[in-house]
Formats: sequence, C-alpha cells, structure tokens
Amino acid sequence: MTLKLYVDRMSHACREVIIFCKLNGIDFEEVHIDLSKRQQLSPEYREINPIRQIPAIMDGRFKLSESHAILRYLACAFPRIADHWYPTDLYRRAKVESVLDWQRTTFPRGSGSYVFYSVLGPAVGMPLNTKAAARTGKNLIASLALIESVWLQKKGRFLLGSDQPSIADLSLACEIMALEVLDDEDHERILGPFKRVLKWLDDTKNAMAPHFEEVQSTLSNYKEKAQKQRNTVGSKITQSGRKPVLQSKM
Amino acid sequence: MTLKLYVDRMSHACREVIIFCKLNGIDFEEVHIDLSKRQQLSPEYREINPIRQIPAIMDGRFKLSESHAILRYLACAFPRIADHWYPTDLYRRAKVESVLDWQRTTFPRGSGSYVFYSVLGPAVGMPLNTKAAARTGKNLIASLALIESVWLQKKGRFLLGSDQPSIADLSLACEIMALEVLDDEDHERILGPFKRVLKWLDDTKNAMAPHFEEVQSTLSNYKEKAQKQRNTVGSKITQSGRKPVLQSKM
Repeated sequence: MTLKLYVDRMSHACREVIIFCKLNGIDFEEVHIDLSKRQQLSPEYREINPIRQIPAIMDGRFKLSESHAILRYLACAFPRIADHWYPTDLYRRAKVESVLDWQRTTFPRGSGSYVFYSVLGPAVGMPLNTKAAARTGKNLIASLALIESVWLQKKGRFLLGSDQPSIADLSLACEIMALEVLDDEDHERILGPFKRVLKWLDDTKNAMAPHFEEVQSTLSNYKEKAQKQRNTVGSKITQSGRKPVLQSKM
Repeated sequence: MTLKLYVDRMSHACREVIIFCKLNGIDFEEVHIDLSKRQQLSPEYREINPIRQIPAIMDGRFKLSESHAILRYLACAFPRIADHWYPTDLYRRAKVESVLDWQRTTFPRGSGSYVFYSVLGPAVGMPLNTKAAARTGKNLIASLALIESVWLQKKGRFLLGSDQPSIADLSLACEIMALEVLDDEDHERILGPFKRVLKWLDDTKNAMAPHFEEVQSTLSNYKEKAQKQRNTVGSKITQSGRKPVLQSKM
C-alpha cells in the first residue's frame, strides 16, 4: 500500500516530510488537510490523528504524527535512504538530534511565532499582532545568530560541519524559509545580516533541487496573493480613509 | 572519565536526565549551573554549551545539549540499558519519538508556560503574569485531556499502552510534575479531573522509586519556601495595604 501523507503545504512541518519523500524516491499519496478550513479538526481526520495536527502519515496500518518523528521513521523504514540523512553513527546522530530538538525547544519562540503574528495569522482567522511580532522578532534574530555562530562555524556546507545534509538541515531550512512570506524589506532586515545562514539556505536548496523549491512554491504563491491583497487594502485606505481587516482568501 | 551532567534540579529537563542516569546505574558527576544566578550565560559554561542552555553533558570529549537528545544518546551509548526505555523496534521507537516531539511542539504552550507565569517567573527575575497564566492554563488543560484520551487509553500502565516506561514517560512525567509548585487548590483544579493521568504519574513514580521523588524533592522544597514567602507577603499586605513584589531567594 502506498504511504499516505496528510499535509498542507502551507505548513513548513508538512513541506519537510513531502520534500524528504521526493528526494528519496518514496512513493506517496498526498492527502490535503486544509488548515485554513480547519480540516485537521474534522471527525474524519481524528481517525487518522487523534492529536488533530498535521503532518501525519499512514504506512499500511501504521499511523504516526509529528514531523521529526516521521522523518526519523521514514529514514529507517525505507530501503536505500543514504546514511547522511539520519546517521547511524552514535555521535553524529546525537548531534543531529540535538539540532532537531533545539529547533523545537527554542526556535519557535522566534521564527514560527514571528511569521504568524506578522503575516500568517489572518490565514487561520486570527488578527495580526504587532506587539507579539516585535517580541518574537527579537527571539528570531537571536536564534539566527546562534545558527550562524554555533552550527555553521565549521567547514562543510551543512549544519554541524557536514558535507551532506541531514534531516536537521531539511527541517530547519524549511522552517526558516517560511520567512519568505514576510515583505521583502522585513525579510532583508531579519536575514540580511546572516551571510552564512543565507549561503547555507542556498546550498540546501541546491542540494535538494528541484524538490525543495517546487514544494516551497506554495508559500511563494501565497506571498504574491497576500501582497496583491495588501496593495488592494492600501488603495481602499486611500479611497475611504478606513483600514479594512486583512483576510486570507486561501 | 566520568560523565558530567551540567544541570539545575529546578529544571524538569535536567531532572529527567539525572533520574535516567540514577535508574540505569550510570555514574555521573553533577555540575550545578544555577539558573537563578543565570550561570548558563557565563563564559565558562559557553565552552561546554555555546547554546547556553541546560541540561548539557560531557562524555569524555563529547558534548551534547537538549534533554531528549541526551536521553536518546545515553540509552544507546551505555551498556545494559533495558530496551523499554528507547525501543529498538522501529514502530515502537517511532511512537515514543512521536510523544517526545509532541511534548516539545505542543505541551510547552501549556505546562511550562503556566508554571512560569503563575509561580516560577520571579525565580529568574521576571514578574508574575496572570493574563498569560490564564491563557496558558487553558492550553495545559487541553494537553492533559489529550494525554488522558490518546496516550493513556490503552491497557498497560504507561504511555502508548506499554507495560514498562520509556524515556517519553520519564520526560513527560517530569514536566507534568513541575506543576507541583502550584498552590494545592490550583494543582487540584488542573490535575484533579484527569484520573488516568494521576494514576500514570503514580505508576511512573513507583516504577522509578526512589530516584524520581528524590530528584523531584528540589521542587517540593522550593514550593515550601515559596509558600512561606507568600504567607509573609500576605501578612505584609495586611499590615501595609501594599503588595510587595514576590522575589525568589533561591
């Protein structure tokens, strides 16, 4: 039976699972769970994942949720997955785990929250929140500084000084690339100073071409739409003097 | 060379690493990094963990941070660790990973934040925040309901229907037990309705006796101190009509 992925490409945690499968020739069926319609809360989806989050997978009768757990499982369960993705060596694996866990314990205080408060909130019916965006923006910059000074300080194009990417590169790059939805000026303000992070993102995209950019394009398209919407909102402000609420039409 | 643990027993992530070592007969030296004095930010500690968080370990020359990554490493690196802690079976391990990751992606929106905003903030120089406590309290109750209805619904005393605990039981129990610092009424309001969670916590404590409670006692002692301090604050309010700022004397 084909592996089923329950995903919405608007979520970076979903994108990383899709990209991993494509890169490694794993056949899958993509089942779209539309976050903007809150389909993850539906009774049908509850049968797949009672935690009611995406991504989730079904491999035969085996169900699993949490993107990092899914990546680890796929790397071990499918044949001929190159070792660099999830090294079998005890010490190299432990370091990859350390980055994966840091991404969960620390990075969301910045990245995800900042994007949510400053751009994506309306897509799931929440208002923008400039105060929270300012606070999380600071955390995000501190986290990028850590990535630059700790995990990208060694030789090797990838995290931890490796010559080839691991699931930690894939997952963290997907999360940082979510910043693409920010407007260009804000994106440059935040990421511009971190030259090593920018080079690593380029190297990661190239190493994962064409799948990384193909899957990421959902977000680029969203950005274009949101930009157009902001422009329309801008012209309406000029016309009426009142600012309409920005709402996603995804 | 003896394994070194850089820890503060006030942190649940540190307690889980200490308990794991004690339970499995792993010799270690405990190096106290005092969070209340912000020792994790010192230049000396930066040499151990440039991310400047605890826990971290040094095993010979190998340095590692993030408690879950440390637990996985210890379970694999040391001889004679029973398989139930971190199962080698692909499917059982994947499920354990799923709980560990959920604990990081979702649970902190409730548990850690609630305890921080409602009790522990002053210990690290932050004010209490009743508004944030109310918001995170709701998340915490939703998370406890999920643990009860999803991971404790099967036979078996432990998470995922197991007969023996895994590192996911240890880690999640340590995080939930951090709620012990709440005052008794609030503790009962939050945990009281979740009978299966309470039974599982008891089973976990018993399976990990005497180490679980011994290491946890740091928090129980803190609670007593804080309670006394609150009582003093209470009497001062009566005397002066003004409420002094609650400050930790840890």
